[in-house]
Amino acid sequence: MGDHVAIIGAGVIGSAWAARFALHGVDVRVSDPSPSTEKVLADVLGNARWAWSELGLPPVPEGSVTVVDSIESAVQGAFHVQESAPENPEIKIAILETIAQFCPPDTVIASSTSGIKPSDLQGSITNPERLVVGHPFNPVYLLPLVEVCGGAATSAETIATVMDTYRSISMKPLHVRVEIDAFIADRLLEAVWRESLWLVNDGVATTEEIDDAIRYGFGLRWAQMGLFETYRVAGGEGGFGHFIRQFGPTLSWPWTKLMDVPELTEELVERLEQQSDAQSGQHSIRELERVRDRNLAAILRALESHDWAAGATLREQRERLTP
Amino acid sequence: MGDHVAIIGAGVIGSAWAARFALHGVDVRVSDPSPSTEKVLADVLGNARWAWSELGLPPVPEGSVTVVDSIESAVQGAFHVQESAPENPEIKIAILETIAQFCPPDTVIASSTSGIKPSDLQGSITNPERLVVGHPFNPVYLLPLVEVCGGAATSAETIATVMDTYRSISMKPLHVRVEIDAFIADRLLEAVWRESLWLVNDGVATTEEIDDAIRYGFGLRWAQMGLFETYRVAGGEGGFGHFIRQFGPTLSWPWTKLMDVPELTEELVERLEQQSDAQSGQHSIRELERVRDRNLAAILRALESHDWAAGATLREQRERLTP
Repeated sequence: MGDHVAIIGAGVIGSAWAARFALHGVDVRVSDPSPSTEKVLADVLGNARWAWSELGLPPVPEGSVTVVDSIESAVQGAFHVQESAPENPEIKIAILETIAQFCPPDTVIASSTSGIKPSDLQGSITNPERLVVGHPFNPVYLLPLVEVCGGAATSAETIATVMDTYRSISMKPLHVRVEIDAFIADRLLEAVWRESLWLVNDGVATTEEIDDAIRYGFGLRWAQMGLFETYRVAGGEGGFGHFIRQFGPTLSWPWTKLMDVPELTEELVERLEQQSDAQSGQHSIRELERVRDRNLAAILRALESHDWAAGATLREQRERLTP
Repeated sequence: MGDHVAIIGAGVIGSAWAARFALHGVDVRVSDPSPSTEKVLADVLGNARWAWSELGLPPVPEGSVTVVDSIESAVQGAFHVQESAPENPEIKIAILETIAQFCPPDTVIASSTSGIKPSDLQGSITNPERLVVGHPFNPVYLLPLVEVCGGAATSAETIATVMDTYRSISMKPLHVRVEIDAFIADRLLEAVWRESLWLVNDGVATTEEIDDAIRYGFGLRWAQMGLFETYRVAGGEGGFGHFIRQFGPTLSWPWTKLMDVPELTEELVERLEQQSDAQSGQHSIRELERVRDRNLAAILRALESHDWAAGATLREQRERLTP
């Protein structure tokens, strides 16, 4: 059993993993060849500490965060490795091979990939039974969800271990039992992306109007109930079968252009860019990060006393961390 | 100018419209042929009053809510008519014709339809320039969004008037400038529905797992920022064009089955029903309504002090209602 977590790849996602582990008292070693690693890491750690205070969590002894100069140095003696390299199968496989070569043979290696199947990543690494996907959601230091998905060679023990590791840092691991590209959440997100791009492409709505349609309406529902339970309530006492028999047929009405993705012409890209600038360009990214994190922390705290969905996770986190 | 609002069709949506108007001090007359109208209305009014107190809004003199025995009685002398009949074009057109026949010629007639184009509704009514879609989101007494969409014959004055009416009851009217089936939000929702039904159909995930993937993850983001602004932040200082050039191509990866809708076989309906029962069957619909409304009110209050999206709407509501 190692004594630290290795973070391989420390962009926005990897750095936020480092912050989440460190804020739960776990020592972290980070490896990333980018010259901006120290800066990104410092910025994200700063954001995470700020979010921590917004959540009203007690101050705890932080784990150390050390940037090292090789994958080998990072993973030696690690009890968990979290890989967050660019979303390119060849790059990820090469990095995972190096990780597997140098870390203890029973150390779990988790990939943050949002789309690549674990079976496609584990073919050439030593002890492939300890490779698993652990796909988080940005900002990782605030959102509880992490999708856990094993490949053909992944052992049940690896799944159990990584679920425990994620729970220990107050996350909600969701075991994706069937290995599919993009897992669960990103499939839903891709569906929304496709439809949204058509709406902009066809001049129906701007990026701001689409965001407003989400955040003043069903986005508020989804922060706490999701799709099926929301419609179970809407359907009333007849139960979900009654509801879906009535409502289901309308889903095949030809409302959408889902069968296709609009071509990302330079014209469409520029339109998206201009609309996004008009919507949010008056704020820096740093300001928007603060707005996002302040809102997320406030929502989590609002749900905490209600013991529902993400609120329960925050309550468990507070209990875990309170001396 | 009339002195009340007419609610035509008082199921869950129509009753919640009645509640939203009455709680803002507007007198309401309701017409619905169903024998359960009084009960549904009383239940929804009770829920809405409870949600009002959860929002911490000041008590205000409520408008009267009167059930009358005909469309004619409801709409005579009304300054706004809100039609929430079943989602069937023939039924809606017949009802809208009757409404238009008896209400003042310049009274705005708004349809709550979630999918039918206003041009397809206004063909045969008198003074079709005052017909418009005002599509709300359940629970109407809590969610601010209402999509406003005019048809070919709708006047600009009607759009302006109905937007003002909705603002006066503390809603966020979103003008859908291009007339398309299902407007904006329900297109996004349909995309998620289709993909979710495939995930259940193919045995990848249960209804509860899909809801968890939403409410512990991106659902929290969407309660406050929506899609484009969230990814603008994730993309960093390079701007949205930089982000979409990098990310966009992955959207055409063959991740989804969006091109199609799973056949709603009896087997799939039963599976959905059983999974939904396993997930939520221990709670009555009334309990789930309370959970939903308590959570929504808490989220809105959490955002209010932050002056972002739905929070700003609540703040304006409080200012409007505080003596």
